Amino acid sequence: MMYFQCDYVDGAHPALLKRLVETNSHRTSGYGLDPYCENARALIRRACGNPDVDVHFLVGGTQTNMTVIASILRPHQGVLAAETGHITCHETGAIEALGHKILALPSADGTITSAQVEAYYRDHLDSGVSEHTVQPGMVYISFPTEPGTLYTKAQLKELSDTCRRCGLPLYLDGARLAYGLAAPDNDLTLPDIAELCDIFYIGGTKCGAAFGEAVVITKDSLKKDFRYAIKQHGGMLAKGRLLGIQFEALFADGLYFHLCRNAVEQALRIRQALEEKGIPPYISSHTNQQFALLTKDQLAHLEKKYYLGIWDRTVEGRPIVRFCTCWATPDEEVDELTRDIKAL
Amino acid sequence: MMYFQCDYVDGAHPALLKRLVETNSHRTSGYGLDPYCENARALIRRACGNPDVDVHFLVGGTQTNMTVIASILRPHQGVLAAETGHITCHETGAIEALGHKILALPSADGTITSAQVEAYYRDHLDSGVSEHTVQPGMVYISFPTEPGTLYTKAQLKELSDTCRRCGLPLYLDGARLAYGLAAPDNDLTLPDIAELCDIFYIGGTKCGAAFGEAVVITKDSLKKDFRYAIKQHGGMLAKGRLLGIQFEALFADGLYFHLCRNAVEQALRIRQALEEKGIPPYISSHTNQQFALLTKDQLAHLEKKYYLGIWDRTVEGRPIVRFCTCWATPDEEVDELTRDIKAL
Amino acid sequence: MMYFQCDYVDGAHPALLKRLVETNSHRTSGYGLDPYCENARALIRRACGNPDVDVHFLVGGTQTNMTVIASILRPHQGVLAAETGHITCHETGAIEALGHKILALPSADGTITSAQVEAYYRDHLDSGVSEHTVQPGMVYISFPTEPGTLYTKAQLKELSDTCRRCGLPLYLDGARLAYGLAAPDNDLTLPDIAELCDIFYIGGTKCGAAFGEAVVITKDSLKKDFRYAIKQHGGMLAKGRLLGIQFEALFADGLYFHLCRNAVEQALRIRQALEEKGIPPYISSHTNQQFALLTKDQLAHLEKKYYLGIWDRTVEGRPIVRFCTCWATPDEEVDELTRDIKAL
Amino acid sequence: MMYFQCDYVDGAHPALLKRLVETNSHRTSGYGLDPYCENARALIRRACGNPDVDVHFLVGGTQTNMTVIASILRPHQGVLAAETGHITCHETGAIEALGHKILALPSADGTITSAQVEAYYRDHLDSGVSEHTVQPGMVYISFPTEPGTLYTKAQLKELSDTCRRCGLPLYLDGARLAYGLAAPDNDLTLPDIAELCDIFYIGGTKCGAAFGEAVVITKDSLKKDFRYAIKQHGGMLAKGRLLGIQFEALFADGLYFHLCRNAVEQALRIRQALEEKGIPPYISSHTNQQFALLTKDQLAHLEKKYYLGIWDRTVEGRPIVRFCTCWATPDEEVDELTRDIKAL
Repeated sequence: MMYFQCDYVDGAHPALLKRLVETNSHRTSGYGLDPYCENARALIRRACGNPDVDVHFLVGGTQTNMTVIASILRPHQGVLAAETGHITCHETGAIEALGHKILALPSADGTITSAQVEAYYRDHLDSGVSEHTVQPGMVYISFPTEPGTLYTKAQLKELSDTCRRCGLPLYLDGARLAYGLAAPDNDLTLPDIAELCDIFYIGGTKCGAAFGEAVVITKDSLKKDFRYAIKQHGGMLAKGRLLGIQFEALFADGLYFHLCRNAVEQALRIRQALEEKGIPPYISSHTNQQFALLTKDQLAHLEKKYYLGIWDRTVEGRPIVRFCTCWATPDEEVDELTRDIKAL
Repeated sequence: MMYFQCDYVDGAHPALLKRLVETNSHRTSGYGLDPYCENARALIRRACGNPDVDVHFLVGGTQTNMTVIASILRPHQGVLAAETGHITCHETGAIEALGHKILALPSADGTITSAQVEAYYRDHLDSGVSEHTVQPGMVYISFPTEPGTLYTKAQLKELSDTCRRCGLPLYLDGARLAYGLAAPDNDLTLPDIAELCDIFYIGGTKCGAAFGEAVVITKDSLKKDFRYAIKQHGGMLAKGRLLGIQFEALFADGLYFHLCRNAVEQALRIRQALEEKGIPPYISSHTNQQFALLTKDQLAHLEKKYYLGIWDRTVEGRPIVRFCTCWATPDEEVDELTRDIKAL
Repeated sequence: MMYFQCDYVDGAHPALLKRLVETNSHRTSGYGLDPYCENARALIRRACGNPDVDVHFLVGGTQTNMTVIASILRPHQGVLAAETGHITCHETGAIEALGHKILALPSADGTITSAQVEAYYRDHLDSGVSEHTVQPGMVYISFPTEPGTLYTKAQLKELSDTCRRCGLPLYLDGARLAYGLAAPDNDLTLPDIAELCDIFYIGGTKCGAAFGEAVVITKDSLKKDFRYAIKQHGGMLAKGRLLGIQFEALFADGLYFHLCRNAVEQALRIRQALEEKGIPPYISSHTNQQFALLTKDQLAHLEKKYYLGIWDRTVEGRPIVRFCTCWATPDEEVDELTRDIKAL
Repeated sequence: MMYFQCDYVDGAHPALLKRLVETNSHRTSGYGLDPYCENARALIRRACGNPDVDVHFLVGGTQTNMTVIASILRPHQGVLAAETGHITCHETGAIEALGHKILALPSADGTITSAQVEAYYRDHLDSGVSEHTVQPGMVYISFPTEPGTLYTKAQLKELSDTCRRCGLPLYLDGARLAYGLAAPDNDLTLPDIAELCDIFYIGGTKCGAAFGEAVVITKDSLKKDFRYAIKQHGGMLAKGRLLGIQFEALFADGLYFHLCRNAVEQALRIRQALEEKGIPPYISSHTNQQFALLTKDQLAHLEKKYYLGIWDRTVEGRPIVRFCTCWATPDEEVDELTRDIKAL
């Protein structure tokens, strides 16, 4: 069986594994206060083009989203997010468990617009009964989005401007950031993101690391006491250096910016095969995830050889199927898959 | 100015006020453990046709919803409710502040169907990634609903059957229960509700009391430790007898079952005036709330003499306007309003 | 049976009841936005000697404590309080249910000192592992304290100075404030409290009202969005005017400042009777609560005629018994009780 | 500098690292549903002598405590724990952040007794105002305790019996379990713990793993929906197999039962050196942690060569200093430390 259902089926990228092995018997302080984490922070600051950002390392994505959102919102505030957002749908109510409502905005392609944010903010203020409803307190987006789409630089700039005008911190979930940055039609850089977002995270787990996410805080007022939030939500890894060592390896020579390129190219080959076969896309993505509306027969046929991601909704009776590549997907498996798609 | 914007503009019904005055200098224990509360509980048990229900008195609606829902759900569970439900829209995230997601179901008229509940429940179980999403743990409905509609006995029976089959406690918010029971086309009785729901509350604040709601628990497994939940959420009134005294007066001679009849008749007269004038309803209600789509000019004209409820959404540019009567609304004011509507 | 177990066995003071009756058929907006509440706010501002304080009305004490504390603390912060504080012991974990630890300080008499606060604050900062422990975020005191003692003006001034130096908002729970202000050895005034505390509440429930507490916010940064907090925690009374009407009556002619004097005098007579009888005090109080260490026989004897408050702890096998008077306690009952104490 | 301040300064035990490297390029499903986790579960079940226990893998200790406690308690319940417990002191209020009070019991040596639990439980029931206080809902202990002491089998049996009689689930935090099992005076086995506790965790992070803790649930009623709790609290590792692989290696050949023996022997040598030097112990421990009351001069002298753990309290002005060994501590470093202690 070949794995195309998600991008966390492998271990660590060899370069990271090598460093984990080399440093295994070193002895350091815990909780992210070691030299590896310090160096990784410095490398990330440089990659962001901003020496003043705070950088913290956490283990996983849901944990990171919880910690960031809990550290920003006051109790009566909620977070604006796409109705398809990861926090909205796939985190078992982790955000609500912190006490906050997710103010879900309609989204056809996983993005939300500055106009939506502005309208929600104004309507809340103008309602006359504001205090009977949840106050919007921040904005959550992801890049790439849940269905693999991207914000352009112009879109992110406009969203950022709106958020700053409304006093809403803008948070970008970068679980798959490396796939977004590697997409052929992407025009955003890491320094752009650092400039336009108030806080974001650089995804490791899906982008070469065995585990780990790096939170970058650019807005000064959000920096205070973040380590308390990490600890309170169970995210402070005792041997925190394991995170620092991996992010050092990802950012020392720019590995993070190219290790996902091949995966995106693979995904675009799958996209083309689906198109040629006339299988309708669920959404048009140029990243490592491709969503298509297979017939049940087509799906059943492919599932004999491939693990695929099956979403829990259907469109006109057709399952939404995710084909997902990652930095470690073998080219031969993509060759075989595209052949099998065409032969459906 | 005349008040038609909501049903809590008056004090207490004279019969209740009289008893509050008569008993004011009596001295009793606190926290609802006094003879008035005991007697009110007995009267409510009788009115429900069930000697085994537990009855608790709280001060207000949001507080009651919080306390009930917190006492039922486990942390990873959410509450199924209409997207227009009071808990969904108008409680400043009180339910999320308890840690629970509201699983909002689409609803054109404020009701939800047994088919919706069953489908949600099944989809959750069948999703293959159940534990990545919030588990439905109970069902919240209101009677009348937020826009003033009613469940028929058949509908409530079907919903109740589904909930019991799925193991989901059914909770009915009866903030305006007396208006629902008094509606001409209603076929539900209080004993029916006590039989079909696992827990519900009999609204006092909007139905004759100065304040107060009576929670009725019919399902044994929900009875345990409910007083802890009341206290923890700030709902245990020190001079709890003030609640008991009012509910005694509401249920001693069946006052609760007829004090809202006139308000419903008044509302239907307003409904008729709106119809005759050709003003489109937003929804068809037979209770004390009537929602209509006025033009901005019509609204501006009426607002010179009347306080009206303006919802925060519009339909095709027209504001949704609520005309609300209550047990204390003077007939002459309704006469005048209907004349003014016809003269628009 | 005569009631000396607590100070909430009566209804409302006649002056308040009169106004509730007079205004019962008036019609007003809800949620505390009515003219009665506005006027009560103005009267309280004047009584506090500060025209800029914000005033909000809530129903009960636990609800008020929850709402205030939730509105101040960030998630990783806790509240410093005496180990005997009401929030520490008698609110079913309401503060923890909001997510906050109570940082309990040892207290022999119910008060905490500025030295304790300063030491806790410094130790936290100096611990080297601050983020592994809860950060102190505010200070809770009560006046009178749980066992009926008082802060002097000098003590409160010193505590206030320390809190401000440490950046810890100081919150005073005034559930029995009127009894404290009426104590013969008290040297604090309401304007003093308004000057020295950042937020406090003027207790109504135990001091003449049927129910109700008035939160006064003096510190500007704590004022923002407080109504959201009230609504989210279920404390926004629909017919909010019932609170305003009562506080108007309490503050229109200074009733609040003298209606509890007699109760304090009664309590001091009980204190003297206990002393004369040689019954050891549990604590030395000059307010309306007197705590004494009765023998079990003495307690059994008195309990034939009197309801008394029995604490859940004992001192050397002797139950801690509370004798509590209130603004409505009849003098003849105190006469009889003191006679019976002396005859033990 | 040599490290004696804690037991998480190293990476993974070589046997675990080897397996992580060997399996790195394998591809598996995520979220702990892979064959490595399945096998590790089977091995742990066997080691517990109970084929029916549920086993779940999490990343760290605070996260595990949060998840377990949240999954057990109802909102109005708290957890009984020693005042020195890890959850009480060192988790930044993580348990309170879930909404639960920690009911701290006095403890001279880190253990709590069955008599304490029974008394607390009875006093709560008998208080007459139970619902005004937090209900005890479970018991938390650790083995070894925070200061390194152990429960005997008889003590744990008695505590377990009491908990079961009172209906309080007993949870054992085994962060350093391997050090406890390896202590010379220990008479408890893993099957004993599995029999006497309702839920516990086998610590990995401090006992040979790079990270990871294995929760074992023995009581059937606690098994339901535990994976929801893991996900909701951010503890479901995407590449969950990393946990399974490590626990496989720890339990395949009994490594877990002997890899900490040397560390305990080293600690006892340090203990002896301290004794010989006349340095008073803070507590008498026979595990890998030794706590002693050094003078400030002694501490300053040792800190030139050694990282030591300094507790945030002092005893009579003397700092409480922790000497901590681990499975990877070199014998030569212990030789040197003991020499230096004797030469103080």
